[in-house]
Amino acid sequence: MAKISAVSPLAPAAFPSLPVIGGVKFATAAAGVKYQGRTDVMLATLVPGTVVAGAFTRSSTRSAPVLDCQAKMGIASAEGAAILVNSGNSNAFTGKVGVASVAAITAAVADACHVPEGRVFTSSTGVIGEPLPHERITAVLGSLAANTKADDIAAAAQAIMTTDTFPKGASATVLIDGKTVSIAGIAKGSGMIAPDMATMLVYIFTDAKIAQDKLQSIVSAQNEKTFNSITVDSDTSTSDSLIVAATGTSGIAVDDSVEFSDALHSVMQDLAHQVVRDGEGATKFVEVNVIGAATDADAKLHAMSIANSPLVKTAIAGEDANWGRIVMAVGKSGAAADRDLLGIRFGDIEVAKNGWRSESYSEEAAAAHMKGEDIVITVDIGLGSSTSTVWTCDLTHGYIDINADYRS
Amino acid sequence: MAKISAVSPLAPAAFPSLPVIGGVKFATAAAGVKYQGRTDVMLATLVPGTVVAGAFTRSSTRSAPVLDCQAKMGIASAEGAAILVNSGNSNAFTGKVGVASVAAITAAVADACHVPEGRVFTSSTGVIGEPLPHERITAVLGSLAANTKADDIAAAAQAIMTTDTFPKGASATVLIDGKTVSIAGIAKGSGMIAPDMATMLVYIFTDAKIAQDKLQSIVSAQNEKTFNSITVDSDTSTSDSLIVAATGTSGIAVDDSVEFSDALHSVMQDLAHQVVRDGEGATKFVEVNVIGAATDADAKLHAMSIANSPLVKTAIAGEDANWGRIVMAVGKSGAAADRDLLGIRFGDIEVAKNGWRSESYSEEAAAAHMKGEDIVITVDIGLGSSTSTVWTCDLTHGYIDINADYRS
Repeated sequence: MAKISAVSPLAPAAFPSLPVIGGVKFATAAAGVKYQGRTDVMLATLVPGTVVAGAFTRSSTRSAPVLDCQAKMGIASAEGAAILVNSGNSNAFTGKVGVASVAAITAAVADACHVPEGRVFTSSTGVIGEPLPHERITAVLGSLAANTKADDIAAAAQAIMTTDTFPKGASATVLIDGKTVSIAGIAKGSGMIAPDMATMLVYIFTDAKIAQDKLQSIVSAQNEKTFNSITVDSDTSTSDSLIVAATGTSGIAVDDSVEFSDALHSVMQDLAHQVVRDGEGATKFVEVNVIGAATDADAKLHAMSIANSPLVKTAIAGEDANWGRIVMAVGKSGAAADRDLLGIRFGDIEVAKNGWRSESYSEEAAAAHMKGEDIVITVDIGLGSSTSTVWTCDLTHGYIDINADYRS
Repeated sequence: MAKISAVSPLAPAAFPSLPVIGGVKFATAAAGVKYQGRTDVMLATLVPGTVVAGAFTRSSTRSAPVLDCQAKMGIASAEGAAILVNSGNSNAFTGKVGVASVAAITAAVADACHVPEGRVFTSSTGVIGEPLPHERITAVLGSLAANTKADDIAAAAQAIMTTDTFPKGASATVLIDGKTVSIAGIAKGSGMIAPDMATMLVYIFTDAKIAQDKLQSIVSAQNEKTFNSITVDSDTSTSDSLIVAATGTSGIAVDDSVEFSDALHSVMQDLAHQVVRDGEGATKFVEVNVIGAATDADAKLHAMSIANSPLVKTAIAGEDANWGRIVMAVGKSGAAADRDLLGIRFGDIEVAKNGWRSESYSEEAAAAHMKGEDIVITVDIGLGSSTSTVWTCDLTHGYIDINADYRS
């Protein structure tokens, strides 16, 4: 395996200071599932009354733990809950042996944490197709359950990393009726990141009080605009999972609060952006805005066609203001477009208008924008009023280095 | 622009010896459209009675010459015809100026070659969005028309290259009623190669006698299994054009000849494979076979999802028998699949069966297959009897080198 030790140039300066969420405790361990000399298992315990919602990969080859989590979503329960995650092995495409591993881990977590098996949510991330040595995980569960801490979310963010070069965290607080509701989340993800899925692995905790169906509906809606609007390489994982747990310990009911929904959105978008900023080999953070599309679906098709195009992404890596490749990507998207109405901007610079290079176009100004770390591409389809924004990164030698050797 | 001078390691040893096709003559010139010190314009003249069929990119941002060619397909004419191709500039996304350039070139070719404008087919390939300096082309037309030669197809194959590292040609002959019908074709293409399109630039000539509608129907059917079944990078060009011209000079009618259709298929497949073998940065030629799919459309979706996956392609570059990424690509394709029925082979080596690693799987044997230059991946979906075969190449540092600097 290639040793890619450098931290992404797009990484935040430091892991953020996250608020402690009442009713949630964390513990981590180095179980040696695959990696040596680092933590690879994290446990989060949740107090009785916690409400859990989620979103998961739509892959037809999704993993055993994903199928198990999906089956448990929406089951109301007043009892406690637990989340158990391991890195190093995804327990995907492992047949009946994989299902048995999930059952073994779930039973052990339920036993150690005194919660029903139906309230144990597990995720596994790492190599596909290898049997998960679940006994290494169950062996550390007693110690994990005995050592949970409310302020250990940063360690949890570390334990779930695979090819990530930095741990990912984000938070928000909302004042409702003079009282504070807090949200804190962590994520992992760097490659095999693509749309039409739930997300990588993301765990978000809040002390808000909310009904399960309300929380699920907010999560599903915000997911479409955040994790389902990022792409690193157009490849969709078999393990992607987003779990949001509301412990209710703040006592603040947020069922219909726009402020809460907005705050959750900001945490989800922050984590989604951090995944792109840690995209394998990334050196540029790219926002693609499509405006003027005929329908919302068309807007997203165009935006994703641009964001997934290897030729667009390599041009950005080369700091080349190659707007012809954006025209190409719009043309191949399958969504409605009229060549002679297209407009394109890099940042504030008008590049093309009404189907050809703009009269005011300055190659120098465009080249200067491309040298920045944050690239903004805006394409006006000129046919309607639908819009879409997606985020991606460039395609560099680093991506080849990582993926020609890493067995994922 | 990065200088990528090395010839693809997958290139044939030499340009093949192609038969002279009666009724076709070629000429080339160095017009300096963009490149210096090489030919960049080719003219092919076709005798009266020649029948022309074709297939073109379905991009919604396709170029002015493509739109012009499409409008001229299917128009019967007993008069002569001509094909004029330039490299270095694609005359795509150039608005009204681009349409005027096509008109100027077409008129000049018609005049120089004494054929109607409706029988002049032009193609342009190269940078997108720059005005085509068509006067450099019209300036050499008189000399081109005066110097056509029947045996100059190899020079024509050279003149149409862009990032290609070798010229591409293929031929076939068929015995019908004791007489020989010949087919010879040339192609260019290396990057921006993807499915759901006609093809790169391909020109195929035959002395067969055939009705235009019959020729078009054979070309369309064979195109789906050849040029529409290859992908280098999932990006679809705005200029892709396939033109097949039948001069009829052999006097042999082939309207319903299976032998002729098979021979044309072999020439088209050979040229399509050569395009993949010259895929930007390619070091491996990859055949993806999907069997057991529920429908033909599903089979092709699965095959293209595998062939376009950056993670599958980088694993092949790294000679890594990473079958987990094939499972991932099947899962994300959107086509029907049941994880627990999947089977995977590398060459003759059974890797996975019924949704998990095969009991007989040998990592050493699989690794040995991956070290070869020709990789064969077979995936059995296990749901039906539909199949699809597509061809691609690996994704290497060479692709990044070429595309982070080349303005296409």
